[in-house]
Amino acid sequence: MRGVIMHAPGDVRVEDRDMPTIEQSTDAIIRVTATCICGSDLWPYRGVEKVDHTPMGHEYVGVVSEIGADVKNVKVGDFVVGSFVASDNTCEICQAGYQSRCVHHVMMGSVGTQAEYARIPLADGTLVATPGTPDPELIPSLLAASDVLGTGWFAAVAAEAGPGKTVAVVGDGAVGLLAILAAKQLGADRIIAMSRHADRQALARRFGATDIVEERGREGAAKIKELTNGLGAHSVVEAVGTQESMDQAIRATRPGGHIGFVGVTHNVSIDGLKLFFSGVHLHGGPAPVRRFLPDLIQLIWDREIDPGVVFDLTLPLEEAAEGYRAMDERRATKVLLTV
Amino acid sequence: MRGVIMHAPGDVRVEDRDMPTIEQSTDAIIRVTATCICGSDLWPYRGVEKVDHTPMGHEYVGVVSEIGADVKNVKVGDFVVGSFVASDNTCEICQAGYQSRCVHHVMMGSVGTQAEYARIPLADGTLVATPGTPDPELIPSLLAASDVLGTGWFAAVAAEAGPGKTVAVVGDGAVGLLAILAAKQLGADRIIAMSRHADRQALARRFGATDIVEERGREGAAKIKELTNGLGAHSVVEAVGTQESMDQAIRATRPGGHIGFVGVTHNVSIDGLKLFFSGVHLHGGPAPVRRFLPDLIQLIWDREIDPGVVFDLTLPLEEAAEGYRAMDERRATKVLLTV
Repeated sequence: MRGVIMHAPGDVRVEDRDMPTIEQSTDAIIRVTATCICGSDLWPYRGVEKVDHTPMGHEYVGVVSEIGADVKNVKVGDFVVGSFVASDNTCEICQAGYQSRCVHHVMMGSVGTQAEYARIPLADGTLVATPGTPDPELIPSLLAASDVLGTGWFAAVAAEAGPGKTVAVVGDGAVGLLAILAAKQLGADRIIAMSRHADRQALARRFGATDIVEERGREGAAKIKELTNGLGAHSVVEAVGTQESMDQAIRATRPGGHIGFVGVTHNVSIDGLKLFFSGVHLHGGPAPVRRFLPDLIQLIWDREIDPGVVFDLTLPLEEAAEGYRAMDERRATKVLLTV
Repeated sequence: MRGVIMHAPGDVRVEDRDMPTIEQSTDAIIRVTATCICGSDLWPYRGVEKVDHTPMGHEYVGVVSEIGADVKNVKVGDFVVGSFVASDNTCEICQAGYQSRCVHHVMMGSVGTQAEYARIPLADGTLVATPGTPDPELIPSLLAASDVLGTGWFAAVAAEAGPGKTVAVVGDGAVGLLAILAAKQLGADRIIAMSRHADRQALARRFGATDIVEERGREGAAKIKELTNGLGAHSVVEAVGTQESMDQAIRATRPGGHIGFVGVTHNVSIDGLKLFFSGVHLHGGPAPVRRFLPDLIQLIWDREIDPGVVFDLTLPLEEAAEGYRAMDERRATKVLLTV
């Protein structure tokens, strides 16, 4: 089968890979329908994280083609969506809603789903079947649920977005934009998008942003305070993962407010005393997308939300290298690969 | 009037100070009945924080002796308890329960309550009158409510201690011990005290600790995991404020669990990536004691709790220097000064 391999930073190729096989009785194999390139794939692409002939990809939707002997919740032919972290969904941590930290969790990045087929560990816990075969127009939104929508949703939940709240979102990538969609769905009164790109501002408004702040860093945080009686936002989503974005998020949050941070933090150090006197709640990490998947799939199925519009470039799998370039050069927000 | 002045690290004296007067129409003056020495007073005593002829103290109970023209909620003669942070209790931040970060807050450390009299700013928001004149035996517990009990209580609430939860407490000073009392009152199933001092272990058990862990740092966190099926505690209180204690708290908490941190952090830096993958909730800061004061006073009045037993040395105000020495040398957990 064909699959994406990153040989080295900046060097993405589509090559023949071995067909995946059932390794554990709890595995399933899926024929991938669509996959995508994640903002986090740019870290190794840019040489910030190590990469060496690595199969890429952790987002996926597809059709079950084979199941292990112990798989009971999905069957061959089911159209399924899964999280970027495989989980048993039965352990104490999963039951508490933290499937991304399941005691048996497997990062799907280690599988590499930018490929024609993928082995899904812990299939019963990981995969959620859609109510039927989806219309093609729903595929991008279902794929978004696999990571960026689920992650943006978790960020908004972690930030306790809801009625009566002003929510600020740091980061205008796909996750930040979908956190806006989530905050809107969760009933937030006011949603401030922090963005300086006209196309992303437009998408932010489409998803429910009521205000746009173009300033960044200290100036950005000051602007949020100006918009909130000098107090700061109740809820802040941090969807970047840099020192500047984390500091900006902490400064923009009122005492007692909540920060949901989902950007994979790179060389970020949080000053204990500043955090202490900020009085904020800080919660984040790899999103437990599985917690939200059934609800998100239903919302998409019912055409209540259309997160798939974050994909602004669609390419066949064979042209993955161009997809990486487009995202790296910020010509695309999020690239969908058809398989 | 007489009051404590710290001339320099290690140099505590009781001297004549000017009688406080009403400066704002919202002030009250109280005749201090009892005050105490805080663990945080040891930071300047040990030269970790700057100090230069500074009036000391921020905990107090006493009798109102004078009120400003706009004070309506307390009257001359009332016995009152107040938080270590004065607050208006009406602003949006106060109403959300974060009185310690009130938009008009005044740190009582700037007043210096280790004295015969003290000016209480924002008296209506800050002071809570007891149901009557308290029996002398209740004074230590009411004084504890002013800071250490309220702070330990907030830590337990921030850590979401409650039914079904295993709570671990890092730090066996007065705040850590009272966080144990709070966790017990909040209904926690299991409370693990981290302490290696026999006398504090005994008090921890009296307050409700079900287990004692003597190990610290990585070993301490490993022990907590061992006691919790390898998962970590649901709720962890961090009541120290050092790098080691913060790291220990994060390691000891399960993914999705909650850390309440109330030790004033000194040179603590939290690694963003470690926090990300820990999946914990982190919340802390100067405790909004005022949020809890009415309930805490009632619990003490009804003899439901006796937090005052954390005071293991009582001295007259004139002997404050000996109190500081005793706490610095760990001969005392918490020193009460009678005025």
